Amino acid sequence: MSLQTLKAEPRIIFFDVIETVFSLAPLGDKLTELNLPAGTDRLFFAQLLRDAFALSASGVFQPFPDIAKGTLAVLLHSLGREADETTLKEILGIFSQLPAHQDVKPALERAKNSECQAVLLTNGSRANTEKLVRDNGIEHLVDDIVSVEDFSIWKPQPELYRLAALKYSCAPANALLVAAHAWDVHGAIQAGFHGIWIQRHESFYHPLMGSPDGQVTSLVDAVDLGVQLLQ
Amino acid sequence: MSLQTLKAEPRIIFFDVIETVFSLAPLGDKLTELNLPAGTDRLFFAQLLRDAFALSASGVFQPFPDIAKGTLAVLLHSLGREADETTLKEILGIFSQLPAHQDVKPALERAKNSECQAVLLTNGSRANTEKLVRDNGIEHLVDDIVSVEDFSIWKPQPELYRLAALKYSCAPANALLVAAHAWDVHGAIQAGFHGIWIQRHESFYHPLMGSPDGQVTSLVDAVDLGVQLLQ
Repeated sequence: MSLQTLKAEPRIIFFDVIETVFSLAPLGDKLTELNLPAGTDRLFFAQLLRDAFALSASGVFQPFPDIAKGTLAVLLHSLGREADETTLKEILGIFSQLPAHQDVKPALERAKNSECQAVLLTNGSRANTEKLVRDNGIEHLVDDIVSVEDFSIWKPQPELYRLAALKYSCAPANALLVAAHAWDVHGAIQAGFHGIWIQRHESFYHPLMGSPDGQVTSLVDAVDLGVQLLQ
Repeated sequence: MSLQTLKAEPRIIFFDVIETVFSLAPLGDKLTELNLPAGTDRLFFAQLLRDAFALSASGVFQPFPDIAKGTLAVLLHSLGREADETTLKEILGIFSQLPAHQDVKPALERAKNSECQAVLLTNGSRANTEKLVRDNGIEHLVDDIVSVEDFSIWKPQPELYRLAALKYSCAPANALLVAAHAWDVHGAIQAGFHGIWIQRHESFYHPLMGSPDGQVTSLVDAVDLGVQLLQ
């Protein structure tokens, strides 16, 4: 193998999407507007992941929007609230209206100026992620989007990260995941990726999850460290 | 195979433990006493399961008490609270002081008078479950306890339910799970068990999880239906 071939091997920084790139704050605002108890947004998101991971554990794949709808209906019922189609649609519609965190644009520009590609890797749907990218005006900075729908496997099953890297003929060791969730970083590391954890809502890394290569508070720092790790 | 042998084939009603048999209400009381926001108990339990399922998805087994401790530390941090050893211990100690729901004793007595065995099947630890059973004075009504620790596999991975049944040479079709959580009933059904869902905290069954053989509001009804299904 020539040195040139070695250099041409892809280096990819994968970015988790919900919370890592796009803020979930509007979900909290919407639930407050509907007079739901404070913290219902965090509870909903945790239960949604719990249910998705449970389905996944039994080998059943269901897409994010469908699981989200079911979990939300169960949660609203348990809070003694109406879970009619209008309410469900109004709340779930928020997932297609999330703003990018302020450090996203400069971070992706940094990646653009490096030899690393920037790929979004989401448990959400591809169509929704494309909309968020477009609406936030960052499509020129994102090389590609991979949704778990593409492989019918949810994160954090290590197989999913491996398949995502394989799509670009990228060795896991040349791939890195940046995510705000310890369970996501954990899955990537188990797949042989590098992993960087970014503090968003959570400020403490779960001690039982695989140790990240770095813990940062800004996505710009994550990219800088990522580029360095993938050299 | 003689008729006698057929009759001797075991019929087992497995009972989920936390929330299904023992109430989690004291957890909420304790967190309220510590001035944590209302609903922190639900959030903690959902995040604990999310993290456990995530670890499980990557083939990593960690016992309940250790995951619970990590998840609670992360949660307390994100709420801007001290996560010192004393606080963690005080909160986690609640899991060993849960009262049985009022319908548990009569339900287990019903099972005792049937040809079905009553086995507790828990994601929690065996030692803790033994303590809860003893403290609640129901040890004479419980035939056995199976903890995920025995097989190093978490519910709702179908393999776990199959192994639990195999321990008693019980065919999955002669086994039934009663649980308050749709994801648990789902896993059991995927393993070939019968499944009955009991309303405890949640009042609506997640529409994407495998359909239970019955939905009940009392554990006595669950046992009556279970005995009938396993005849």
